[in-house]
Amino acid sequence: MRALTFDGTCARVSDVPVPERSEDTAVVRVSVAGICNTDLELVKGYMGFSGTLGHEFVGVVEDGPTEWRGQRVVGEINFACHSCPFCAEGLQRHCPSRRVLGILEADGTFAEYVSIPVANLHLVPDGVPDDVAVFAEPLAAAFEILEQVHVQPGLDCVVLGDGKLGLLAAQVLQHAGARVLAVGRYPDKLSVLRRREIETALAEDWVPEPTSLVVEATGTAEGFEKAVDATKPRGTLVLKSTVADRPQVDLAPLVVNEVQVVGSRCGPFPPALRALETGAVDVRSLVSERVPLEHGVSALELAATPKALKVLIEPGA
Amino acid sequence: MRALTFDGTCARVSDVPVPERSEDTAVVRVSVAGICNTDLELVKGYMGFSGTLGHEFVGVVEDGPTEWRGQRVVGEINFACHSCPFCAEGLQRHCPSRRVLGILEADGTFAEYVSIPVANLHLVPDGVPDDVAVFAEPLAAAFEILEQVHVQPGLDCVVLGDGKLGLLAAQVLQHAGARVLAVGRYPDKLSVLRRREIETALAEDWVPEPTSLVVEATGTAEGFEKAVDATKPRGTLVLKSTVADRPQVDLAPLVVNEVQVVGSRCGPFPPALRALETGAVDVRSLVSERVPLEHGVSALELAATPKALKVLIEPGA
Repeated sequence: MRALTFDGTCARVSDVPVPERSEDTAVVRVSVAGICNTDLELVKGYMGFSGTLGHEFVGVVEDGPTEWRGQRVVGEINFACHSCPFCAEGLQRHCPSRRVLGILEADGTFAEYVSIPVANLHLVPDGVPDDVAVFAEPLAAAFEILEQVHVQPGLDCVVLGDGKLGLLAAQVLQHAGARVLAVGRYPDKLSVLRRREIETALAEDWVPEPTSLVVEATGTAEGFEKAVDATKPRGTLVLKSTVADRPQVDLAPLVVNEVQVVGSRCGPFPPALRALETGAVDVRSLVSERVPLEHGVSALELAATPKALKVLIEPGA
Repeated sequence: MRALTFDGTCARVSDVPVPERSEDTAVVRVSVAGICNTDLELVKGYMGFSGTLGHEFVGVVEDGPTEWRGQRVVGEINFACHSCPFCAEGLQRHCPSRRVLGILEADGTFAEYVSIPVANLHLVPDGVPDDVAVFAEPLAAAFEILEQVHVQPGLDCVVLGDGKLGLLAAQVLQHAGARVLAVGRYPDKLSVLRRREIETALAEDWVPEPTSLVVEATGTAEGFEKAVDATKPRGTLVLKSTVADRPQVDLAPLVVNEVQVVGSRCGPFPPALRALETGAVDVRSLVSERVPLEHGVSALELAATPKALKVLIEPGA
């Protein structure tokens, strides 16, 4: 089959073997896959990954347990062992011996077929088209904020960053009842939120004010500093993206203002799928481009341009 | 009166005016004052402070409302405005227009007399001697951890740092039912905890293992990194002391492991006073030296030596 692979140096589309089904896995024919910023980091060397890239997908089960065959599915990316103390505590997403789809020791979704543990699959509701369902994984990451932080009705909230995750997080928080101000650099991207009645500001014009909940989704050291400035005493700062390199950070304001910093990564699929089904979150406006798998390398380049939002890869196209 | 003052360059004991009582304040004759690491930072230029140093104390109300006169008291250090939105929310310790005793625009306790808002005073229970009561403020800072973090019975906990605050935090957490491992550099200091059945380890021998609650009380960049290493996924890292300078920090592990970092500063006095009354926390073993106010400069030097714990200043001696 064809797959977009990375060999540690170079990304290319090439022929690789179709994955075989094992006892606990299903083989899924990928309908649509999405490019995430993590994929762009991987091809710069992050995690030392090599293999087939990609972890966002929607597809149809080709081979697997009878009850799953022919079903349209999305899948969680952390493949846990289900037998260690972490898994026993319900921390499967943090299982220390986990493999991670398209990120750590598991071939990913930029391919015609992908192998996924059956335990990681979720059925896609009938009314949700493929190019919406493919957002289940990043939207789940946005819902993770609600898993970790108690968002009271009317809570004042700033989301820093108008990338894909920032736009999803702003919508999830607004829908949960928070009063959201989204701060970004691109009027076009922010307009997605304004159409949903979410207040927006350009980063260059924005003056931080004490805010109860700040979500840092710029992935920059400057964003982190601004986020700290904007978090009110005893407030919460959610770190939704990792900051490149090792920034010099002044930790004193965290102590003086008793700020709570919450690292936040993968999240729960069921609320994400429900939000996609009800239309509570607009994801379609986030699609910048659809690219056939054969042009996967160009798709990665396109996704790395500043104005791009979600670039989708279509193996069947 | 005599007072240990700092003029921005130099600490000295000199004559200053006795503070006068105003409508909402009491004038307290200081019996014993304690030197905190923050005082040592102030004389290095932290906060740009000048005036009488000191914020830990126990004393007797000399002048003030009738019901307070002659009472033995300790006092909270944040002088709030009681009229802003922060104060209205119960965040008096974070009032943006606060003065802070011996730290920010308010003369401190290394003096014969000190002026304190009546709202900040707490009665000292009869059975608590002065050299125990003087620990109310730093012990309250240790209790702040319990205000901010839900410590379940048997929670696994590591306290990094065998300074005064580390030793108090370890005892407070142990008494709250956590299983505490205290990691430090000085066997003598750690022995205070071993006498209280708290497990200890020398930093050089300690290998971080995934821990639910980690308290960083070393105030070093190295301590922060070790604390991050030791915090288990979805665990909590309490920052109890500010790290000098602006360390280069790798924030990625916080996101990947979804760690919660909680900055923690001043705390509630009532549980601290109760713990001092019941003897739940051993503070007497933390007293390194008692020094008359007249030798206050030497007292600061002594407090800055690595092996020192609490140095007390006695204005009446």
